[in-house]
Amino acid sequence: MTFEQWMRAVLERVEHALEQYLPPVSTAPARLHEAMRYAVLGGGKRVRPLLCHAAGELTGARAEAVEAASAALEMVHVYSLVHDDMPCMDDDALRRGKPTVHVQYDEATALLVGDALQSQAFVAITEAAGTLAPLQQASLTRELAFAIGSLGMAGGQAIDLASVGQKLTRPQLETMHRMKTGALLRAAVRMGALAGETPDAAALQALDAYAAAVGLAFQVVDDILDVTTDSATLGKTAGKDAKDGKPTYVSIIGLDASRELAAQLRSDAHAALAPFGARAQRLAELADLVVNRVS
Amino acid sequence: MTFEQWMRAVLERVEHALEQYLPPVSTAPARLHEAMRYAVLGGGKRVRPLLCHAAGELTGARAEAVEAASAALEMVHVYSLVHDDMPCMDDDALRRGKPTVHVQYDEATALLVGDALQSQAFVAITEAAGTLAPLQQASLTRELAFAIGSLGMAGGQAIDLASVGQKLTRPQLETMHRMKTGALLRAAVRMGALAGETPDAAALQALDAYAAAVGLAFQVVDDILDVTTDSATLGKTAGKDAKDGKPTYVSIIGLDASRELAAQLRSDAHAALAPFGARAQRLAELADLVVNRVS
Repeated sequence: MTFEQWMRAVLERVEHALEQYLPPVSTAPARLHEAMRYAVLGGGKRVRPLLCHAAGELTGARAEAVEAASAALEMVHVYSLVHDDMPCMDDDALRRGKPTVHVQYDEATALLVGDALQSQAFVAITEAAGTLAPLQQASLTRELAFAIGSLGMAGGQAIDLASVGQKLTRPQLETMHRMKTGALLRAAVRMGALAGETPDAAALQALDAYAAAVGLAFQVVDDILDVTTDSATLGKTAGKDAKDGKPTYVSIIGLDASRELAAQLRSDAHAALAPFGARAQRLAELADLVVNRVS
Repeated sequence: MTFEQWMRAVLERVEHALEQYLPPVSTAPARLHEAMRYAVLGGGKRVRPLLCHAAGELTGARAEAVEAASAALEMVHVYSLVHDDMPCMDDDALRRGKPTVHVQYDEATALLVGDALQSQAFVAITEAAGTLAPLQQASLTRELAFAIGSLGMAGGQAIDLASVGQKLTRPQLETMHRMKTGALLRAAVRMGALAGETPDAAALQALDAYAAAVGLAFQVVDDILDVTTDSATLGKTAGKDAKDGKPTYVSIIGLDASRELAAQLRSDAHAALAPFGARAQRLAELADLVVNRVS
């Protein structure tokens, strides 16, 4: 199977899982469920689900188990986008090529969509009772909750907000991104692996090193694309970081050095996968995808 | 031990557990952690933790297990208050006798405080790995996640917002409250029970009936207090429901009938506890507390 075929197959399974784990519009409150589905379905690169599936293949995780974990990861990611786009945060009107939730619906609905998607992620993990053993459900819950709380994603958001107009050092910028986006990407890899045969400590450490490199690469490339690509291609407002006075890799080390850094991080990611040999092929290909993407 | 002594002892343990499960201000991001602690600590009636502890006594749950569950419940409750008070929702400036989080800090911080408290609740449940078996962690996660998502608390909020200025029937009002506040109160009772020896189906059913009555009573009394008590006593803005055009028990069935209903629901709660005999004493006393409270 080529990487493209693998991706297409996974993306189809992810879409189906999201469809299944989101409450139907026919259930009350209909408008909230409609808005949750509007935010989650039919868009997005699904990077976290892809990482989760690729890591799950390493440990022989069952498809249904990885699907539940993937759905949880994507719902959490979308919740963070919906809240991040709200007027009191980044105040953005465009996301995944569509009006953001507070524009399409209203602010209160956007707030509740994010809140409910976070909860629904934990529902997905613990609803998969037939496919995940209790110990796995507990591990996956712990991984996800730690990754997205004040010591992870939400904390990174807080640092991001506080850094507007500030001059951050490169280590400070890295800390922010490690929390804001890196923690959830790392959780995607770990949750995929933990959904199968429990990996040993060395394997988890190698996966952490891989995820750290990919997570940082993801952000560096985001910063590059923000200044080199138009809004239509990105599906979100381009040039926004510079306009908002947000520190980025490009603003701190320049465009050329940012591109070199992305290439270096890709090498680091590949190197981290060495112990797994050919079994880590999909993870390696995903590292390439993250660095080579154009949107 | 008198009920007052029991309450005091439990409240002390709850405060200690919250203190322990909230990240310290010395950890970055300091301002977010300070705001989380501002929202959670030193205030509130702690009704959900009290119900959780009382139910845990029925099934012999260990203190540490109930403390983790209680901390999770209270953090989720506070997250819902913080978001509910935001300008795009109820736009309230006073809570638990203090300025609300978005007033004391800012809107973005209030949003992140709520988001991070929800995550931290799931951290608390799965951090208590030494005291809760994996199956219990999974059950408690499931109970909490279901109770607070779009089919529970967040969904009830959505219906509440949509009902402003509407004329609800009494069954519609009940559905809204069953989701908005009832679901989490029910989870408090169930999580306490599930933290001990797994209760049988009949016991869980009896506890559900108790929780349904107490949950509704809680809301009916809230509606009564909203029109009969001043803001200083309540610690939040009085008379707000009427001003906001929100349907309440008092507006639908009147003050006298609301008082009768609260008394009836207390009897229902007591009746539901009959199978447990004297072991359910604290739960019975809590039903009295909910109905007789003056703030």
